[in-house]
Amino acid sequence: MMMEQLLLSRASAASAASILEARSVAIVGASADPTKIAGRPLAYMLSRRFKGKLFPVNPKREEVQGLKSYPSLSAIGEPVDLAIVGTPASLVEGVIQEGINAGVKGFVVFSSGFSETGADGAALQQRLARLARDHGVTILGPNCLGVANSSTGLIASFTTALEETPMRSGNFAFVSQSGALGAYWMDICLRAGLGFSKWITTGNECDLDAAAAIAYLADDPETRVIGVYIEDIRDAAAFRAALKRAAAAGKPVLAIKAGRSSAGAAAAASHTGALTGDDALYDACLRQHGALRVDSLSSMIDIARLYLFDSVPQGNRVAIMSVSGGAGVLIADESEHWKLELPDFSPATHEALGQALPSFVSAANPLDLTGNVVQNTRSISLALETVATDPGNDVIVLFVGLMHSIASAFTEALSRVREKVNRPIIVIWIGAKEESLAELEQASIPVFRDIPPAMAALGQSLRLSDLRERALTLPEARGDADAPVESGSEASPTVCLSEWHGKELLRGLGVGMIPKGVLVDMDKAVGGLPGPLSYPVVAKLQADDLLHKSDIGGVILHIGDDEQLAGAIATLKQVAGGRQVRAHGILLESMQAFDQELLLGLRRDARFGPTLTLGRGGVEVELDADVVTRLLPLREHHIEDMLNSLRSARLLQGFRGGKPVDISTVSAHIARLCEIFLTHPDLTEIEINPLAVSGGNAWILDAVVRKFS
Amino acid sequence: MMMEQLLLSRASAASAASILEARSVAIVGASADPTKIAGRPLAYMLSRRFKGKLFPVNPKREEVQGLKSYPSLSAIGEPVDLAIVGTPASLVEGVIQEGINAGVKGFVVFSSGFSETGADGAALQQRLARLARDHGVTILGPNCLGVANSSTGLIASFTTALEETPMRSGNFAFVSQSGALGAYWMDICLRAGLGFSKWITTGNECDLDAAAAIAYLADDPETRVIGVYIEDIRDAAAFRAALKRAAAAGKPVLAIKAGRSSAGAAAAASHTGALTGDDALYDACLRQHGALRVDSLSSMIDIARLYLFDSVPQGNRVAIMSVSGGAGVLIADESEHWKLELPDFSPATHEALGQALPSFVSAANPLDLTGNVVQNTRSISLALETVATDPGNDVIVLFVGLMHSIASAFTEALSRVREKVNRPIIVIWIGAKEESLAELEQASIPVFRDIPPAMAALGQSLRLSDLRERALTLPEARGDADAPVESGSEASPTVCLSEWHGKELLRGLGVGMIPKGVLVDMDKAVGGLPGPLSYPVVAKLQADDLLHKSDIGGVILHIGDDEQLAGAIATLKQVAGGRQVRAHGILLESMQAFDQELLLGLRRDARFGPTLTLGRGGVEVELDADVVTRLLPLREHHIEDMLNSLRSARLLQGFRGGKPVDISTVSAHIARLCEIFLTHPDLTEIEINPLAVSGGNAWILDAVVRKFS
Repeated sequence: MMMEQLLLSRASAASAASILEARSVAIVGASADPTKIAGRPLAYMLSRRFKGKLFPVNPKREEVQGLKSYPSLSAIGEPVDLAIVGTPASLVEGVIQEGINAGVKGFVVFSSGFSETGADGAALQQRLARLARDHGVTILGPNCLGVANSSTGLIASFTTALEETPMRSGNFAFVSQSGALGAYWMDICLRAGLGFSKWITTGNECDLDAAAAIAYLADDPETRVIGVYIEDIRDAAAFRAALKRAAAAGKPVLAIKAGRSSAGAAAAASHTGALTGDDALYDACLRQHGALRVDSLSSMIDIARLYLFDSVPQGNRVAIMSVSGGAGVLIADESEHWKLELPDFSPATHEALGQALPSFVSAANPLDLTGNVVQNTRSISLALETVATDPGNDVIVLFVGLMHSIASAFTEALSRVREKVNRPIIVIWIGAKEESLAELEQASIPVFRDIPPAMAALGQSLRLSDLRERALTLPEARGDADAPVESGSEASPTVCLSEWHGKELLRGLGVGMIPKGVLVDMDKAVGGLPGPLSYPVVAKLQADDLLHKSDIGGVILHIGDDEQLAGAIATLKQVAGGRQVRAHGILLESMQAFDQELLLGLRRDARFGPTLTLGRGGVEVELDADVVTRLLPLREHHIEDMLNSLRSARLLQGFRGGKPVDISTVSAHIARLCEIFLTHPDLTEIEINPLAVSGGNAWILDAVVRKFS
Repeated sequence: MMMEQLLLSRASAASAASILEARSVAIVGASADPTKIAGRPLAYMLSRRFKGKLFPVNPKREEVQGLKSYPSLSAIGEPVDLAIVGTPASLVEGVIQEGINAGVKGFVVFSSGFSETGADGAALQQRLARLARDHGVTILGPNCLGVANSSTGLIASFTTALEETPMRSGNFAFVSQSGALGAYWMDICLRAGLGFSKWITTGNECDLDAAAAIAYLADDPETRVIGVYIEDIRDAAAFRAALKRAAAAGKPVLAIKAGRSSAGAAAAASHTGALTGDDALYDACLRQHGALRVDSLSSMIDIARLYLFDSVPQGNRVAIMSVSGGAGVLIADESEHWKLELPDFSPATHEALGQALPSFVSAANPLDLTGNVVQNTRSISLALETVATDPGNDVIVLFVGLMHSIASAFTEALSRVREKVNRPIIVIWIGAKEESLAELEQASIPVFRDIPPAMAALGQSLRLSDLRERALTLPEARGDADAPVESGSEASPTVCLSEWHGKELLRGLGVGMIPKGVLVDMDKAVGGLPGPLSYPVVAKLQADDLLHKSDIGGVILHIGDDEQLAGAIATLKQVAGGRQVRAHGILLESMQAFDQELLLGLRRDARFGPTLTLGRGGVEVELDADVVTRLLPLREHHIEDMLNSLRSARLLQGFRGGKPVDISTVSAHIARLCEIFLTHPDLTEIEINPLAVSGGNAWILDAVVRKFS
């Protein structure tokens, strides 16, 4: 890991383009057998009519799969964009060196036996990385399943997913750090009737990484939706920049990140040599950069389907129509789960539906067309157009079950209305026939086979729209201060300051929110309350590296007069003596009245750099933590979003007549603290618990500040 | 609704048997056209070789679909078990009367135009119900899609779901209050390759209802798994008894109940005239009687698949094997979501795997076999058998992706090990071929197409096992005291007692848990604390129908001495005067120290009878309610389960060094209170908030008791 970190990839969108858009391809060790790994790329490209030149390289043969075979890369004698390499690991470096000498610009390396196998393999892989860097060529892999480009017919891959299924062009692209998951995606995507634009598996990422691939797809005119499978991101800055680029280009990103669970994380760590990081930070990284995290390939493809059929609605108001009342109710149930609204129809719609439908049909949302449609197929079209022109909804979900005898009445009505009204229509059709499906998809109408996946795709597409909108205003990371820092290691020890020292440090940096306080010497007598304070006060024992002073009785609250104060100080001295705490004083602070307690944490992560955690303070934190974490930097309104996304947000918003917190002003206080943390890389951690808030005020009631010592 | 409630069905399992096991069937108005509603049942039964006699009844024809046609039911001249009736609504009563006269025992009525259309239709339906009751015959419907019995070939239905798909016998049965949902189930079930035993749609339920159908299936030797779709249960006692019968027979029940959401409930109310009740009570009813509520037909069929293939494990310890590390991690992630454990392999397994697999494979759970299996197919069988004989796991989840070239190596190894070891193996195979699927299912190995549905089915089957086990000890309902009571209506007005009167009433009934208290006269001077009390005390204004006394300042806490007491009483008198509360006194109570606050509610529901609600007390109740409701009666250990299932259960169990509550003793207190509520039907509601608990003690700090006035 360390060695690889020393040599972060410089791969870019252009590097990816040099591989994906290759027009002349050499296959090193090309086999005449189209079922072998070394024979498949050539066989695939021949049968899918690659729009470019193919050069089999095999010194043992005159001809391979009907093409002239060359003894070596240098023997080809004309420019080669890309060489496919699947030789044993020990030979790869030599082959690439030969290719570089012959002017080859890009390499796809299938070979395994590199960093995934241990230190020797990792060293071998480093040498490939250095070749790429020193000679300005691009290397994909090693240990990858290659790439495919549906528009040129480039298939620099030996995946069996293309063995039987015809390739189909489309606008969905996939980047995978796992070759296997890449193959499954290809299989599911093609079977689902969706085409793809580009397909990129990055393997061990000695040079071209997932970030570069995403950046390339952000610019690729053939790609409208980007799917990603990641296990480990080494260069978080590049990954974040790539996600920003995709967001700016208006392209939704759907991501699977394995290792959410502890068992999963342990398993991921043993897989392809990737170190799986803190899942919550990956989650934050994806979310705040506008990417939606999904839990499976099926779910990814369901959501992508809505985008690819231009069927993501502008808002969350759903009109439900069904041929079965029960199904309508089930759809309404799922709608609520996904926070979709079911608005009433407008009076005009009510009236028009009354005329179009039999009297026993009630013109409500969900609209139950009833089995009567079988006798009265014209009502399908009438009802559909009426609902689709009601300005009160954003999308129509139509449920059909079986009804094969009138299938064409549905497909014709749907196609006509979809074209005429241009509002998304999502069809759920249990028992749909293949031809009905094909007709509807032709008309840009996505079809699902059961209710939950359809409503999940709809609900998640709206979440994604929301994430994407917020991501557009995310500030740029700003270089060194934001950079990851390996803290707490032996090389860079840290110290945890006492509350007093921590607060003094923060005060010196311009942090407000610190209650009036006075440090009292342990050894001097205290003759009453020091100047700026007023009762009631709190007295707190102060020592560096004393993290849990309440737990040892080091905090005394509600001190109301001089007598209680003297008693408290005596008690704290006893505690310090008994526990052998090397205390440097007792902090006296005026007690604050407040309405709510928050928890605030600022940290530096080795992978993702500075992070902000906000949550509900108090005992609930440990019972059922209500916290949210984001990577910095953020704008004030992102911090407001964080507070408003807490489960307990209602407490802040003024619950049961409680006084509302001025979330906007409190967020501004927090934003200033974040800015100070960002610009002071010597601070490694600030944890404030509680941050007491009331109206627009916030007070740091306790703080742990950790810095490099 | 009222009329129907007057005439609750007396239908039983035997009634359902009389329909489902009919051996001679008359089809009234049988059509010669096999595609028409009136022609389909006959056509279906002829083509599926119904094992019994068929009698078309059509006075206009000599012969229908090749069978002799009879002019009327009475003209048949031999015993008829079942008549299928699809005539216009107005003729149905006459046809049934004629059938009764001719000795017909059962009727399936497709005809619509009954209670779903309004009062006239409801009256017509009542007459059918009366015919059934008066003459001891069984009527299914009206407005239903009929029944099917795969073993006799009885298809008394016009569903199009059987039009193209071959019927297949199996052990899965379905009961549906919606004909459409019944048809979709049939379609999905048959397409999924599962057979069915019985299929029953109950329509308007004038006589035979879902409860009777479930009771019948509980006894049916051909049925092993029961699926249910319900919209509205009118006779909750019969429904509960039927679920108990299925649980006692060891048959899992998977239920869809529409109307979970508010919008869904509104829509359900407009559908087939059913009044959808309180969803939480349906939820409680299903759960505590051992039925698992699912959200879709797909999910129901996924879970049923595990039962039908004898693949529900005995415990939650999962061994994961995969051909792709990434997939293994994703499975581990889903496992955690479903609370499945991933135990380490035993040392013996470790060693055996080390020998069976290449050196670069790490013998951990999840076990990544890697793509190496393509070269070394023998390792599949070796690894599978090794893991399947490790006593440390209950089930194996094997992931395969594509791998068509070695598909038979997988299917053979799996089939062999499944038979030899007899441990459930669940296969997730992305891109599986139909023939591989068929071979595995032949070997009792269920196959799923993606990770989330497989793990959801596994997790839910274990939840269902748990529910079923708890349900077996559920006490019987005990007649009148448990019966539903329509309370608060004009006919039976209720009164809400003051806290004092309520507590006196409870004390009189033998309820403990009531703190020492004295009622002070409003008009008399109080000369110090009354006898049995000690400071601190609380003073509370007392008036009937005064529900929220704290909100008007009617509660004063922490009264520490005589002076404060006098002040408090004066204040409360002022409050009573100012708010014009007709107070009958002031309740003084000793304040109790306690550890946790619970909420306890006892109510009588018009549909489900007495219910118990338990939850976390305090402000959290309204912020993010943590409550659980169950139908009474319950045993003490069910009440313990309720407390332990709260999200905040850890607070009770002793959180962060807090004192644990003696949940068992507190549950016994609560059980006694439930018993008192059950045996005093004049009490309509008891709400205790908070019920303060500490160790094994519980105190009713405030109570609202409502009774018939």
